[in-house]
Amino acid sequence: MRELLNNRKTVRSYNKDIEVKQELIKELLGSAGRSATTGNMQLYSVVENRDPDMLEQLAAAHFNQPVSKNAPVTLTFCADFNRFNKWCVARGAEPGYDNFLSFMTASIDALLYAQTFSLLAEKEGLGTCYLGTAIYNADKIIDMLKLPKGVVPVATIAIGWPNDDSEQVDRLDVDAMFHSETYSDYSDLELDDIYREKEAREDSKKFVEENAKESLAHVFTDIRYNKANNEHFSNVLLKVIKDQGFLD
Amino acid sequence: MRELLNNRKTVRSYNKDIEVKQELIKELLGSAGRSATTGNMQLYSVVENRDPDMLEQLAAAHFNQPVSKNAPVTLTFCADFNRFNKWCVARGAEPGYDNFLSFMTASIDALLYAQTFSLLAEKEGLGTCYLGTAIYNADKIIDMLKLPKGVVPVATIAIGWPNDDSEQVDRLDVDAMFHSETYSDYSDLELDDIYREKEAREDSKKFVEENAKESLAHVFTDIRYNKANNEHFSNVLLKVIKDQGFLD
Repeated sequence: MRELLNNRKTVRSYNKDIEVKQELIKELLGSAGRSATTGNMQLYSVVENRDPDMLEQLAAAHFNQPVSKNAPVTLTFCADFNRFNKWCVARGAEPGYDNFLSFMTASIDALLYAQTFSLLAEKEGLGTCYLGTAIYNADKIIDMLKLPKGVVPVATIAIGWPNDDSEQVDRLDVDAMFHSETYSDYSDLELDDIYREKEAREDSKKFVEENAKESLAHVFTDIRYNKANNEHFSNVLLKVIKDQGFLD
Repeated sequence: MRELLNNRKTVRSYNKDIEVKQELIKELLGSAGRSATTGNMQLYSVVENRDPDMLEQLAAAHFNQPVSKNAPVTLTFCADFNRFNKWCVARGAEPGYDNFLSFMTASIDALLYAQTFSLLAEKEGLGTCYLGTAIYNADKIIDMLKLPKGVVPVATIAIGWPNDDSEQVDRLDVDAMFHSETYSDYSDLELDDIYREKEAREDSKKFVEENAKESLAHVFTDIRYNKANNEHFSNVLLKVIKDQGFLD
């Protein structure tokens, strides 16, 4: 399994001639259900999409990223207190899960479940790509997937049998994130060390040049993940969390 | 790997005579670094604790759950925009990550990383237990681990070589969380089906009896995860997110 991870790459291009069987997806989701979950409440749901019309609508909510238009199947993992709440009410108990802690608890459950599923799928030879945009346009996804109160999408995984054209990208060294006993904050010299290799890569340099920016960091702050967008989508997401009943 | 998951159980009791080598932890964290991450930003850090004094302090922040007092090592996974922000500033770029979307983005990164690590550790034969309480007393953990602005703990994993006394607990059937194309909400009859086996278990019945409650659902709503506590810790967590610079 270490080898699986060490060789892992995100797959954004899929061979649509080979079906991703629902039976396999469900088997893997079943095994993923063994992941850790708060108090054994299993506060998640997953919506599978493979209908072309639904996939096209969903792609729009993911800003029509090529991967979202190309995937034969997507799985949207949701923080879900709805099922648990309904069970409590059906038994005459009064659920107290209309608050932010409960949203985070369910989000954690859903994300651990999603990640276990994703690794199980990759072990089977499937290719996956997380669409981080699930939390950007959560309001639109809620409408499309008819998610009731108590349910918020936290991650979408595009999945399919891979075309062999993905490359592994760089990662920081483990020492960049590892702290012993307490957090030791980063000096400028340490940051130089941590980011030197990334900044020196040909693809990084090309990225900076194409965007006519001063540095790789500027590509992130000014273009890819800029403040104005972050603030806009923060407000959308906070409204979603409120509307779905987690900030009462 | 499917077998690993199908047989998976949470381990709360560890054999302290066998050392959990830091070298192994770091190797596994290195492989886990191949997990999906938003825009390849790797917005996480992990703090390892094995010093007995630190572990004792931390156990208090985890309500002195037996597992938190018994673990030889804990790893606290944090949503971390601090490193990325500092890098941006060092390059003269202006980070715009002081908002809720950025908190969620970093939390997702950290949780996928934590879960990959956890499965890699289990594959090596280690036993793990998530301490969901990391988000309850995040303020205390921030103080103890000296986490700077931009860093919020989202999960703590207790880890050690297992004593052979853990049992696998129940899980709901995959059909309970699987939805095709759109979410199909649960009728009372469906809820009966979903929760029948759980409610009929001897351990569930004992749990209800010991707590003198009407149903298993009441044990959750009135005792284990009650509204007053949830609301209290929601306020703590929202304040932490604000204090750490994600709700400006």
